[in-house]
Amino acid sequence: MARGDDGEERVRLWFEDMPVGRRFTSGKHRVEREEVIAFAARYDPQPYHLDDAAAAANPIFGRLSASGLHTMAMASRLVHDLFVRDGIHPVAGGGLDEWRLILPVFPDDVLRVEPEVVEAHPLATRPGLGLIKFRTTVLNQNSATVMAYVGILFMERRPVADPDPQTGDAE
Amino acid sequence: MARGDDGEERVRLWFEDMPVGRRFTSGKHRVEREEVIAFAARYDPQPYHLDDAAAAANPIFGRLSASGLHTMAMASRLVHDLFVRDGIHPVAGGGLDEWRLILPVFPDDVLRVEPEVVEAHPLATRPGLGLIKFRTTVLNQNSATVMAYVGILFMERRPVADPDPQTGDAE
Repeated sequence: MARGDDGEERVRLWFEDMPVGRRFTSGKHRVEREEVIAFAARYDPQPYHLDDAAAAANPIFGRLSASGLHTMAMASRLVHDLFVRDGIHPVAGGGLDEWRLILPVFPDDVLRVEPEVVEAHPLATRPGLGLIKFRTTVLNQNSATVMAYVGILFMERRPVADPDPQTGDAE
Repeated sequence: MARGDDGEERVRLWFEDMPVGRRFTSGKHRVEREEVIAFAARYDPQPYHLDDAAAAANPIFGRLSASGLHTMAMASRLVHDLFVRDGIHPVAGGGLDEWRLILPVFPDDVLRVEPEVVEAHPLATRPGLGLIKFRTTVLNQNSATVMAYVGILFMERRPVADPDPQTGDAE
């Protein structure tokens, strides 16, 4: 067992607890109009992410929508919180494949993420670590997929001398 | 010619001005420690992006480093500013492939990006638009590659009745 930020003991999952096919579901996040504009202003200042009239004139969006990068940031936070909740503590991210922006994300949409393990193998070069790939689907309040990607994470392998071999098996 | 935000006339590039192999170089951005912590706190609150002691204990980073997502956000802004400078106005982003975090990015690093067109084809489903893929390399002040990815953008095709067919050819 590991101790969480709140002091409560909880299960910790290791690389070995991530078989291909294991799925997780996050909590929810409501997209705020103010944050859509603030994020875009700093990192992706396209007029159609900043201004209603410019968004209405855009042939793809039609109305003010979040930067794809902002949707990725919101999704990453949902993944982070789900990982903390479920005892997953990656040592680093390794990158991302097949990131697709499928539908626009609008203010007041409510997002959730569903990561699924699609690849897992120990690292030859780092004996204590394993590589995990998650295919992560981002859904809105209508359960429509707005974004998807395959994320790469590095996780620690279960210590050989782990005194409680059951820790990783609890759901 | 098109008129920029500053009222100055400048070249506008269309889909047809993006042959495979065309390369661009951005301006520079210095990574700020405060922003590293603020971004991570909101979107990627891993202890090793927030706290010096936790970063020192991490087997990969060794000291406080930027969230990969934050590096992507800073790189995207550099790409945006270069696009505005060079007259590139995508109508939307389509996603991203092969995003790899290659080296940690630390406070006070100075980043630049170098996008290169690696694929370009008209969209069958949207006659006025074309798809462009850029392989974008993110480099630090030592010209070491810290991150790379292939970004997908949609750009407008040159209007058939464009009164000045030379607009897209100027460098």
